[in-house]
Amino acid sequence: MSQVPLNELPATDIVRMISDGATTAEAVTQACLDRISARENDVKAWAYIDPDYALAQARILDGEETKRPLHGVPIGVKDVIDTADMPTQMESPTYEGHQPKTDAACVAILRAAGAVILGKTVTCEFAGSFPGATTNPHNFDHTPGGSSSGSGAAVADFMVHGAFGTQTGGSVLRPASFCGAVGYKPTYNLINRSGLMFAAENLDTIGLLTRTVDDADLLMSGLLNRPLSKTLPNDAKPRIGLCHTHHWDLAQPETITAMEDSTERLKFAGAAIVEITLPESFANLSKARNALNDFERSRVMADLWQNERDQLSENIAKQLESGTSMDYAPYRDAVTLANDSRAQLDDVFGDVDFILAPAASGEAPEGLNYTGDPQFQGCWTILHVPTISLPTHTGPNGLPVGIQLVGRRWQDETLLGWSRWVVQKLGIWR
Amino acid sequence: MSQVPLNELPATDIVRMISDGATTAEAVTQACLDRISARENDVKAWAYIDPDYALAQARILDGEETKRPLHGVPIGVKDVIDTADMPTQMESPTYEGHQPKTDAACVAILRAAGAVILGKTVTCEFAGSFPGATTNPHNFDHTPGGSSSGSGAAVADFMVHGAFGTQTGGSVLRPASFCGAVGYKPTYNLINRSGLMFAAENLDTIGLLTRTVDDADLLMSGLLNRPLSKTLPNDAKPRIGLCHTHHWDLAQPETITAMEDSTERLKFAGAAIVEITLPESFANLSKARNALNDFERSRVMADLWQNERDQLSENIAKQLESGTSMDYAPYRDAVTLANDSRAQLDDVFGDVDFILAPAASGEAPEGLNYTGDPQFQGCWTILHVPTISLPTHTGPNGLPVGIQLVGRRWQDETLLGWSRWVVQKLGIWR
Repeated sequence: MSQVPLNELPATDIVRMISDGATTAEAVTQACLDRISARENDVKAWAYIDPDYALAQARILDGEETKRPLHGVPIGVKDVIDTADMPTQMESPTYEGHQPKTDAACVAILRAAGAVILGKTVTCEFAGSFPGATTNPHNFDHTPGGSSSGSGAAVADFMVHGAFGTQTGGSVLRPASFCGAVGYKPTYNLINRSGLMFAAENLDTIGLLTRTVDDADLLMSGLLNRPLSKTLPNDAKPRIGLCHTHHWDLAQPETITAMEDSTERLKFAGAAIVEITLPESFANLSKARNALNDFERSRVMADLWQNERDQLSENIAKQLESGTSMDYAPYRDAVTLANDSRAQLDDVFGDVDFILAPAASGEAPEGLNYTGDPQFQGCWTILHVPTISLPTHTGPNGLPVGIQLVGRRWQDETLLGWSRWVVQKLGIWR
Repeated sequence: MSQVPLNELPATDIVRMISDGATTAEAVTQACLDRISARENDVKAWAYIDPDYALAQARILDGEETKRPLHGVPIGVKDVIDTADMPTQMESPTYEGHQPKTDAACVAILRAAGAVILGKTVTCEFAGSFPGATTNPHNFDHTPGGSSSGSGAAVADFMVHGAFGTQTGGSVLRPASFCGAVGYKPTYNLINRSGLMFAAENLDTIGLLTRTVDDADLLMSGLLNRPLSKTLPNDAKPRIGLCHTHHWDLAQPETITAMEDSTERLKFAGAAIVEITLPESFANLSKARNALNDFERSRVMADLWQNERDQLSENIAKQLESGTSMDYAPYRDAVTLANDSRAQLDDVFGDVDFILAPAASGEAPEGLNYTGDPQFQGCWTILHVPTISLPTHTGPNGLPVGIQLVGRRWQDETLLGWSRWVVQKLGIWR
């Protein structure tokens, strides 16, 4: 048996060990709960957790004769995703104590596959920009990123093995990069969104925060009823598209170093590096994303805007005001630009196997009032492509720095396969 | 003042009359309620209605000094769309008495624009294939079509001026065609879906049932914050793509006649008719649509399937069983075919202004156990294009027969403009 505590092992090991009788779902859940007890006062990753109930779920699983595919894997759920047995409160007083009738699709499927739904993780208010209380587990004075703040912090801090996040701009990959987790945003619409409170429907994508690529792949296999993605040979020779994007001026020194070092070492490992310049028109996608975000969110939240305006943060109130007064024509122009850009993706990718891009501007910034700039993540979100951030590097303050790999739409397994290969070559930050 | 009863007038007239002080929201609502009293025993269009509460909403509007853009227009809401003040029951015992916390986006927006939310209309169970009690208002032994059965019947029977429906296969256009209403399915995702219980997220589109094209346009202008679409000159000379689709063998004699007669008369009115043959690969879209539908619905309903299976109809249980056991690969193939087909639409449309296609196989069939074949509608739903059915013709049993006009994605206003022109040339069935 491993010397590594159960809460620190990857989910792939947990499933194997439970299946072999080397441990139990209860022991794994207890290890997570112990870690949470020890750290939650500082990290503040959880919006709701009931230890007894979590253990009760685990014991029921332990009592079953047949093992399920994700038997005993503890999972956190961002608090904008419905759970039938726990409140879903959107980090907003307007949803205080709100109890959905059913589990969201993604929760119900993992639960049926044997996962233990450990609790709800802190989100920014309605998965927007107004932060919850969560801190960066590696330095409590720094932001964990957002809006999937609790999911990023809890997974990176070994409180839980995997967690659902959602990304409308950069809300999965940024917290993953800042906290030092793997952040995977699948192709748009790949993880079923039933039971998710939308922010902007044309952008919102449910994603995963895990500690390994294998764990993201394992959870996806359960969600989609598909085999695990193929492991590529160690001596594979990918063609990698190096893409600095239109936001390169935002890159801090540590992000520049992470990109240069990754390029160098992947080249040494056998990769061919091809510089990719995005079409000039893609520079407008950031503005287009804001337009989609404002227009659509003002519709999603029309009821709250009419009836509970005084309980909303100033951040979101400003956005709703802007979206509500916005005309349809600029919105349609933004949608058209997004559609036209997606249609150019085949040309952009050319013959590369995947794109390498910055995951975030740099290390997690100091302060808890701002979760960081979303543009390095958002420019891919609006393109609906699958992307993953890998915590491969470290910055000047000892905090993690990630890189981002981007794949073709609906070719998520290929991206995950290459991600595994890249991690093998570059290693993980700590 | 008009001699036509208030409940029979188009919404455009209602707004004008209320604005002019010629009538009140209360009087309009009362006229609808009277019609419902007289007919509901036979038509069974409503899942929930509280007359006093409807009148109370109208009186509040009447008390306001400034008139809102849709002031006093009564609207029905398909019972898979959330309402904060009325239960949302999905025509399923599993949702009996279920009370959502907030209005769906589309409901909240129309309400803020001054609409009176009259009540909830009967849906097939979870917007699927198992019918509710609604009958065809023109012959109670015939199906109203589905799954937006109550919305189609209520609007066509002058119980309400407009209603929301949803279309995953043919659930807006088929009831519209069978009941003799205008059925408009906008571009996929154009009407915000927040607060809709999904069936299959890649297909589900919220649409409108109205009695005139102008009314559909009016409601869209409120939903999207856009001006009314332009009226085309009487002597416009459109290029019309005549498209029999891959399902022409399903067309009953009355549908064949409706298509021939429309072509003839629109040609006479000045249109150029161009035959459009869909690519051979489009013949597989019907199967692909079924794959999307089964795979995605089994995810949406995973919680109910695990926990309340015994309360689901055999229809939906079969679908969930099929979707749950389905592998990811055929699902991804279906999505890929859909994406590839959408990418060919520019070529399909060529230089035509819009496509003319059958709306349904024929008149509403006899019997209330089957709401009719969805393929003439579904082949366009999966393409995400805006489509509208116009009740222009009559069948051998005196029931309405529609035609369908299809536009380019995100060019809904153009389609509505041409629809108005076509109705002017062909007239409405009665």
